[in-house]
Amino acid sequence: MDEALSLSGCRALDAADRLKPLRAQFELPPGLIYLDGNSLGALPHSAADAVQHALQQEWGHGLIRSWNDAGWIHRAQAVGDAIAPLVGAGAGELVVADSTSVNLHKVLWAAIGLVQQRGLQRHVLVTDRDNFPTDRYIAQGVCDAWKWTVREAGLAPDTPVQAAPGGNPRSAAILAALSDPQVGVVMLTHVDYRSGALHDLAAINRAARAAGVLTVWDLAHSAGAVPVDLKATAAQADFAVGCGYKYLNGGPGAPAFVWVHPSHVNAVEQPLRGWLGHAAPFDFEAGYRPAQGIARYVCGTPPILSLTALQAGVSTLRAADPLGGMAALRAKSLSLTRTFMRASRAAAQAHGLELATPTRDEHRGSQVSWACGPRAPDGYAVMRALIARGVIGDFRASPRPGLPDILRFGFAPAYNTHEEAWLAAQALGGALGQVAQQGPGTSARPRVT
Amino acid sequence: MDEALSLSGCRALDAADRLKPLRAQFELPPGLIYLDGNSLGALPHSAADAVQHALQQEWGHGLIRSWNDAGWIHRAQAVGDAIAPLVGAGAGELVVADSTSVNLHKVLWAAIGLVQQRGLQRHVLVTDRDNFPTDRYIAQGVCDAWKWTVREAGLAPDTPVQAAPGGNPRSAAILAALSDPQVGVVMLTHVDYRSGALHDLAAINRAARAAGVLTVWDLAHSAGAVPVDLKATAAQADFAVGCGYKYLNGGPGAPAFVWVHPSHVNAVEQPLRGWLGHAAPFDFEAGYRPAQGIARYVCGTPPILSLTALQAGVSTLRAADPLGGMAALRAKSLSLTRTFMRASRAAAQAHGLELATPTRDEHRGSQVSWACGPRAPDGYAVMRALIARGVIGDFRASPRPGLPDILRFGFAPAYNTHEEAWLAAQALGGALGQVAQQGPGTSARPRVT
Repeated sequence: MDEALSLSGCRALDAADRLKPLRAQFELPPGLIYLDGNSLGALPHSAADAVQHALQQEWGHGLIRSWNDAGWIHRAQAVGDAIAPLVGAGAGELVVADSTSVNLHKVLWAAIGLVQQRGLQRHVLVTDRDNFPTDRYIAQGVCDAWKWTVREAGLAPDTPVQAAPGGNPRSAAILAALSDPQVGVVMLTHVDYRSGALHDLAAINRAARAAGVLTVWDLAHSAGAVPVDLKATAAQADFAVGCGYKYLNGGPGAPAFVWVHPSHVNAVEQPLRGWLGHAAPFDFEAGYRPAQGIARYVCGTPPILSLTALQAGVSTLRAADPLGGMAALRAKSLSLTRTFMRASRAAAQAHGLELATPTRDEHRGSQVSWACGPRAPDGYAVMRALIARGVIGDFRASPRPGLPDILRFGFAPAYNTHEEAWLAAQALGGALGQVAQQGPGTSARPRVT
Repeated sequence: MDEALSLSGCRALDAADRLKPLRAQFELPPGLIYLDGNSLGALPHSAADAVQHALQQEWGHGLIRSWNDAGWIHRAQAVGDAIAPLVGAGAGELVVADSTSVNLHKVLWAAIGLVQQRGLQRHVLVTDRDNFPTDRYIAQGVCDAWKWTVREAGLAPDTPVQAAPGGNPRSAAILAALSDPQVGVVMLTHVDYRSGALHDLAAINRAARAAGVLTVWDLAHSAGAVPVDLKATAAQADFAVGCGYKYLNGGPGAPAFVWVHPSHVNAVEQPLRGWLGHAAPFDFEAGYRPAQGIARYVCGTPPILSLTALQAGVSTLRAADPLGGMAALRAKSLSLTRTFMRASRAAAQAHGLELATPTRDEHRGSQVSWACGPRAPDGYAVMRALIARGVIGDFRASPRPGLPDILRFGFAPAYNTHEEAWLAAQALGGALGQVAQQGPGTSARPRVT
């Protein structure tokens, strides 16, 4: 029986979904199938209420008093503590601050600082060749400052897609690079932003620990959709950052998070010495004395309105705790992406699309990406036609020769359904047929994050 | 005639105030006199509306499409362009990004980079001994990385308060430090956060230019209250940052702004290479290529909800444009602080308070600070008693031996009135008498920004 390949089968899966109650937490425009929660998560009703309260009551009425009376001063840590269990971190180990980019700068600087402090003659940082641009740019900047070298390893994320039995090819290429004794730090994004391929976080952490290499993970496309165990036995990570506005549903440009393994956090400083990272910020001491623990990764005053929306967003995922938590979210996510891959495959392949996302569950994040092969119609035009049919995914142009354009479909297990996956697959088939027949048209390409 | 020293005189000044219509833009809790707009500006009605729109319509309904359709992608630059004329910057020269602390890190790094690039044998950064902690911490961090030295100059901000005829003593102490040929950069806060003393920005810029020293200004307590002319003829500044949540009324933790003189902006990079500072962020190029102009000072994705509130906050000041603009705001600010100083002086001095703020207009920002002399009652208890009487100022404990505790009263010319200044002075007298009689009590000291 192949329930997922019929609308009624998908509806049956949704009817049996334990996480079904979570969807009612969100504002979802009627008539729209939203498959871009990996770019910007949907609005939780509670975010609108919480931000309105922060505006009118806390700011408008409480004014400066709300730093104490409304707990603004503790909010970044409170939201960090709410995120922590989603990624396997302990309470007090993870804090919300700044953007993913700025946090990555902090942890890379600290990681290299730690290698130097240990007196190791290592000066190479390894990363994926096709890691997200900000990660590569930030890494290059930090390495320039420390006179380290960035070594790009890994496969191009789009080829080969499907693993040989037993192996994660993307991770294997990284593992091979860790044995060079010059390597001091490896920085990776857990889920590839283009293909949705998932690194084997535990295997890389184990190998890195064995090789004396520090690990820095970007969890932008994992947190809230893919379980992460930063402190897994014998496979502990060293540093991690992540994004608030994707699967954590924190709103546009929500502040990001940062985690440092407790065994390192007090051993090294991060480079952005803002007053709120000071051990005693309100004593206004002459010299900088970093706070103990993850609080030292805070820099300036956090954007309270955006932070409040993030708090509401995180609570939509923590609502899954009594329903199976991240394990249940992961199971549903895999079921959704599996459904969409199978339901869209025939039409996609007939129009020259190639699956960029691994079909094996353990190699896949929470998105499905179809690559535009040489026979495929213009991918941008296909996505425009699909949006006109009420299905929002996104289009990622090729960043360099040899890589294809990509059609991305993110599945947020907190609100997407199997019925949506099935209907979106039908709409994709229709959009492909339309563009193949009419040509791409001339609309300008949009700029989206 | 001394109108300011009576309630009716103050009411007459308010009745004649051309800027009177601006106050109606704000939510101001009834029965409260709010004199802490230098810590957190009041809520504009339009901010509540704009953020609600950004939440419900832009995020909730528009979802990812709002990066284009609602102009999120241009908002940081749009708000920067709205702030620019308030500080004498040109359109396209100033952008909103990150926090003041993070922006200070960027500009200090760039300023030192520029000195190095020019091949100058300078490696000293001069700053005020009692500059705001974040500024000193950040400067020390950047100087450590570049192997530069931070040299603290200036007077302690609280002594001597009143200038000899003709001179600004705080600025004179800095000017004296600029002649050392080892000095490459001078970093100053325009308005001192404790005393409210104002630096002579033009004189320091002129002297710095003559000495080949680059200037970095923190405009946290100036923007929106004190006119700044970053590009004054023959007295141009080099770099500036400022705060969104004080007189710009941007809300708690609002993002900050950064300006770089157009002659430098493309000559040097800032160190936080986030993707949104890239020349072509949506091309996802392999290497970092900084944007032309101030856009290179953007790093990660901006917090749109907080940015939207800042946009509304800035518009409350731009509403002064047809009413005389920053010059009118400055005139009113000086009148308010003058009124408060005069109305509070007798009671304050009778209880051992000493005026920490310069009485000369050209040496004063937009706040009045009373220092707790040796005979004064406990300042924290006085501020608590004052708040209980419906007047919110703030208390700043001594940061080091030799400096007094401070009672601060910020005057926001966009919404504060002479009547409030007069009533607050009466309440201060009452609070002083109460604490002198009853003793300080035992309440814990709060933590506020």
